[in-house]
Amino acid sequence: MSHIPMQKRWTVKSRPTDEVRLEHFTLEEAAIPVPAQGQLLIETLLLSTSPPARMWLTSGGLSGKPIPIGDVMRGSGIGRVAASRHPGFSAGDLVSGSFGWQTHSLSDGATLNPLSKVQAPKDLPLSTRLHVLGASGATAWFGLLEIGRLREGDTVVVSGAAGSVGAIVCQLARERGCRVIGIAGGEAKCKWLEEALGCAAAIDYKHEDVGARLNALCPGAIDVFFDNVGGDALDAALAELAIGARVVLCGGTSQYQHDGAWQGPKNYFHLVYRQATMAGFYVFNFADRFDEALLPLEDGVRNGTIKYAEERYEGIEQAPLALQRLLSGENFGSTVISVAAE
Amino acid sequence: MSHIPMQKRWTVKSRPTDEVRLEHFTLEEAAIPVPAQGQLLIETLLLSTSPPARMWLTSGGLSGKPIPIGDVMRGSGIGRVAASRHPGFSAGDLVSGSFGWQTHSLSDGATLNPLSKVQAPKDLPLSTRLHVLGASGATAWFGLLEIGRLREGDTVVVSGAAGSVGAIVCQLARERGCRVIGIAGGEAKCKWLEEALGCAAAIDYKHEDVGARLNALCPGAIDVFFDNVGGDALDAALAELAIGARVVLCGGTSQYQHDGAWQGPKNYFHLVYRQATMAGFYVFNFADRFDEALLPLEDGVRNGTIKYAEERYEGIEQAPLALQRLLSGENFGSTVISVAAE
Repeated sequence: MSHIPMQKRWTVKSRPTDEVRLEHFTLEEAAIPVPAQGQLLIETLLLSTSPPARMWLTSGGLSGKPIPIGDVMRGSGIGRVAASRHPGFSAGDLVSGSFGWQTHSLSDGATLNPLSKVQAPKDLPLSTRLHVLGASGATAWFGLLEIGRLREGDTVVVSGAAGSVGAIVCQLARERGCRVIGIAGGEAKCKWLEEALGCAAAIDYKHEDVGARLNALCPGAIDVFFDNVGGDALDAALAELAIGARVVLCGGTSQYQHDGAWQGPKNYFHLVYRQATMAGFYVFNFADRFDEALLPLEDGVRNGTIKYAEERYEGIEQAPLALQRLLSGENFGSTVISVAAE
Repeated sequence: MSHIPMQKRWTVKSRPTDEVRLEHFTLEEAAIPVPAQGQLLIETLLLSTSPPARMWLTSGGLSGKPIPIGDVMRGSGIGRVAASRHPGFSAGDLVSGSFGWQTHSLSDGATLNPLSKVQAPKDLPLSTRLHVLGASGATAWFGLLEIGRLREGDTVVVSGAAGSVGAIVCQLARERGCRVIGIAGGEAKCKWLEEALGCAAAIDYKHEDVGARLNALCPGAIDVFFDNVGGDALDAALAELAIGARVVLCGGTSQYQHDGAWQGPKNYFHLVYRQATMAGFYVFNFADRFDEALLPLEDGVRNGTIKYAEERYEGIEQAPLALQRLLSGENFGSTVISVAAE
């Protein structure tokens, strides 16, 4: 009997009603597929996951279409072309795309992005392209500067401040002469915000009254609130907006598990009292301007002025655990699943 | 015994916990005051009232300071100078200001606005300065055009559409080539929206499912939602925003009686899905541009292209009833209390 190389993949087994657990997924094995003419085979190297993935399992979130039961769980990452019958790709090329939670996948190339040598320099971990030098970095940049219309000297409050996007927002605002207050869960994250990222203060929402702390730190003085979390943190910040404040809606991590029953911000009318604006955005609308964000962020990572934390899981077997820890806030930094040697 | 001329005034007796009722006010009589040097005595002719007045009785709303118990109820209107010892005013001058619910008041002139002959033309009712040609008109204009950034051809949904501001919003949008859908309570108001104000459709929130109607009329297609109401109407509209939509927060009539326990919009995250903006504003920030709004509105009222409805109460004794009916939605059009012959 000859050895047949196998791939592994996680499919959606059932829909969670509250927290995501291992039981909602099935780990399957299958023969590694062979590319037809015009296709290529990708070996997944790295996967990232982020809190909105929770919504893909039920309401569908932005798309409104949940992943069908039995389908491979959705997820973006970086892969290497293992075999190509496509004129645009050669074996060994690095690509990024939405491969799903699987070790191997076929593609017709249409939705892949080749990673140039410039985008994968040897002196920076490849995984940075999945967070600080990828979508998280662009989200922080355009969210804060374009949607948040940041001005020097602003008082900036960030929820989910130790998260993949939040940590970059804190540092970009700090670099621009702003006073930054981060909200995060637990002492370790808060210490990191204050000591490594330059936050003027950090609020531990697990052990402190966020509203009382904001009222003490910046009463009626929040110029920009960058929200990754929603829920009580959003209400607490709305109550302390400055005149003309901008609320940047980026994420709603505290609510993704509450499909259809989100906690609406009861303080939303403070937008009227404070002549303030609350806006959502889609980072890929800025796709043709990503270099504006990613080149300076790359410089920052190189020279140490932009710091990041990464929580790395070894093996695709860990993917459900990675998502589970991310949604419960137990993670620290951006989540990366290492699937194969880079 | 000589006859002493008396004034009447409504003071705040107690704070409502839900609906406003007559028992929350006291009707007092007192001698008409005599102006000292630098003061003038104003005879109130007309008063207006609007839903936010409910908040002044409890949380204080925008100011955060409720009217003290025993103080005269706050309210704006138009008055005539009855006697003046102030160099800037003469007996007979018309002025607008926040006189409170009283037949007579003293002023040092600082917060009064003289009404020029241009602003009180003989061919238009003086009361129009309290709504369509006053703050309501300016609110509709700047809210829709500046905050809502109205574009020709937009689909515009207006809650409280038959109200003092809403009715003007509907007509301004209609005039600019927009498809307008009004939400109001009851058949009479809905008929008026469709037949007199040019709305493409009207939704009777008291007898229809607003979400289902919006989903049928403009699924995912609301470019501007002008909200005077909050609560369920706001949530229903958020669920049907177009990409890039603007939500103009003007009022929250459905929530003013729920101090501190407002219903937050559970669909607020649709602002993210639709890359939309929700903004509050303070109309008096546009005070130096009011003519931009009020001159064309005056032309419109004259030539019949801008219609308005007015619910008139005779005598200051009716003021609490007027507010009560306004808050319960039983009113029709702008509320005006006629206090003395014009």
